[in-house]
Amino acid sequence: MKFGFKIIKKSKKSFARAGILETPHGVIHTPAFVSVATQASIKSLAPEDLENLGAEVILSNTYHLYLRPGSAIVKKAGGLHKFMNWLGPTVTDSGGFQVFSLGWGQVHKIGKIGFFPGFEEIEQYKGKSPKLVKITENGVEFSSHLDGSKHFFTPEKSIKIQEDLGADIIFAFDECTSPLAGYDYTKKSLRRTHAWALRCLKAKKRKDQALFGIIQGGDYKDLREDSAKFISSLPFEGIGIGGSLGKTRKNMFKILKWLHPFLPGQKPRHLLGIGNPDDLENCVKRGMDLFDCVWPTRLARRGTLLIKKGRLNIGNARYIKDFRVIEAGCFCYTCQNFTRAYLSHLFRAKELLYHRLATIHNLYFTLNLMRKIRENILKGKP
Amino acid sequence: MKFGFKIIKKSKKSFARAGILETPHGVIHTPAFVSVATQASIKSLAPEDLENLGAEVILSNTYHLYLRPGSAIVKKAGGLHKFMNWLGPTVTDSGGFQVFSLGWGQVHKIGKIGFFPGFEEIEQYKGKSPKLVKITENGVEFSSHLDGSKHFFTPEKSIKIQEDLGADIIFAFDECTSPLAGYDYTKKSLRRTHAWALRCLKAKKRKDQALFGIIQGGDYKDLREDSAKFISSLPFEGIGIGGSLGKTRKNMFKILKWLHPFLPGQKPRHLLGIGNPDDLENCVKRGMDLFDCVWPTRLARRGTLLIKKGRLNIGNARYIKDFRVIEAGCFCYTCQNFTRAYLSHLFRAKELLYHRLATIHNLYFTLNLMRKIRENILKGKP
Repeated sequence: MKFGFKIIKKSKKSFARAGILETPHGVIHTPAFVSVATQASIKSLAPEDLENLGAEVILSNTYHLYLRPGSAIVKKAGGLHKFMNWLGPTVTDSGGFQVFSLGWGQVHKIGKIGFFPGFEEIEQYKGKSPKLVKITENGVEFSSHLDGSKHFFTPEKSIKIQEDLGADIIFAFDECTSPLAGYDYTKKSLRRTHAWALRCLKAKKRKDQALFGIIQGGDYKDLREDSAKFISSLPFEGIGIGGSLGKTRKNMFKILKWLHPFLPGQKPRHLLGIGNPDDLENCVKRGMDLFDCVWPTRLARRGTLLIKKGRLNIGNARYIKDFRVIEAGCFCYTCQNFTRAYLSHLFRAKELLYHRLATIHNLYFTLNLMRKIRENILKGKP
Repeated sequence: MKFGFKIIKKSKKSFARAGILETPHGVIHTPAFVSVATQASIKSLAPEDLENLGAEVILSNTYHLYLRPGSAIVKKAGGLHKFMNWLGPTVTDSGGFQVFSLGWGQVHKIGKIGFFPGFEEIEQYKGKSPKLVKITENGVEFSSHLDGSKHFFTPEKSIKIQEDLGADIIFAFDECTSPLAGYDYTKKSLRRTHAWALRCLKAKKRKDQALFGIIQGGDYKDLREDSAKFISSLPFEGIGIGGSLGKTRKNMFKILKWLHPFLPGQKPRHLLGIGNPDDLENCVKRGMDLFDCVWPTRLARRGTLLIKKGRLNIGNARYIKDFRVIEAGCFCYTCQNFTRAYLSHLFRAKELLYHRLATIHNLYFTLNLMRKIRENILKGKP
């Protein structure tokens, strides 16, 4: 199996490290941002666009591809790589995030793990339970968000689907707990996630895929430490850090600090679902190697463009007559070819091209930021 | 002014001819299909995609760009070419088609000039009149389809807007009559269109744009002949053939036959709004040089892909597991890289990438068909 991780430089001032992750479909220079292709497509981009952006790796969602087109179809196509014609490294998640987003996420009215300082405490949700998801010790019953049909995911099934999809890096099936879950629930869930981790290791058959375990435990110190120790002790090829990372950014940093002493030094660490430009450098400094997040691309489609000084809302009337590029000095295809005025027009006119041009810019911004972070580590800067 | 048209080969069996149309932004090899970028964007494609497709010329709509972003903005950007970063030849229509589509087209419940063999006769529309459009001898009052605001187009204003937009080829302001208009209305409208043609010639100031006149007259032989003679007698750089071309394809061919003896031999002829693959060769044989049509791109977005044997509806369940390309032997980017199964998935999952890949295929199909028609003329075949 062509999987290996080499750390080539460590920062002296932080836990940051630069590495090279080898996969059967090529190398990933870490720290790296993993672009999210939920349904086997980075929304609005072709694989060629990704290559031109210098993107090295993408992540697709097991749950989504299982429902549509179905993992048997992807397998028959020759796997995810051939199906979507992206020949570089790929990752699939385990479906565990959907246990949250279709489950307690819906009860708690939060579609995404994130920072929710304003949210009320867990008490108000007592007695309620998820409608689209039923969790047992054996696995999780989902109701499809497409047609309501019922599907049962076990750790074994998640691994089987991920083997059919054929990504280079796959994840153990887990329950991603809600930021609003209480201690008792999180503890009970964590025991289950740990049992499932063992079952995933046992179920895995393919030798050309790297299986990453996932640390859960919410923002409870003893649970996070317990999970870090347990997952790190198992023969996973890498470590995912998932679930609720607390209700504030500060809390997330605190959790990463708790975990660090227990993480194996030589395995890659993927901070699941995080990839906001504001978080990247801070989390790299706390020892993280891999990130994935839909925000850069989702923000783009909604009209928000990333710039060094923050964000630019292309829907703002001031850009109608602004003939500058999004950001002077940006080398992305969009900034090399189009003005804010044209993007403003495309956005207002609901032209499909807008999505691609905006996505290219935001993804380039994020990938380029990560390249600079890596460069700084290599230069011994941060 | 860098505008010129050379006919380099004429067919001996038909009125087909191959030519080279020189414009300030490059040459167009005729017969040519003009891709439609209604709002300064071929829906879902970047100008680079067009170059890769071998497209030589695009057409944008004056009425749409006048309303949004406004012709002053496009002018300030340096003209349509710079605004959208398409540096090849461009065409703008005059707004005359919208006089129809927002006017009698709405009364007659037809959004597009085309073939309507099943439509009832004009009698049932007597006493009705358009709501969004008011036509006088001086010009046309439009109500904007965006916000209902009122705008008045005169021949002079259409030319002024088109000079601000700055396309290489512009059109005289006309009334495009409905296929269901009666003789008396069509005759009255034609006199107005002829008067407007003279006013457009007088109004034109820029020397680096070619102004084409438009022949109207519905499917009435005397009116069409009258219009062909009148428009051909004026110092236009090219001839547009517009308006209703009858209720059937056969009727359209008949009209082209009527017109042919009166068309100036050395001027390019643009058959407005026609570009269905089935029509191209037949209309080239009837002496046409330029075509534009939204169908190849609109069909693509709706799931219909053009193939030699007809059409392929990618929404059909049979394509879910079809790992062949759209058409074997097709050299388009889509067929070189993606399968029917993947396109079927993107279409069903409503992924934005679908639109671009499908548009690329259908546009390539159309452009390639036109290239072959031209090649055959050069080889003395058709």
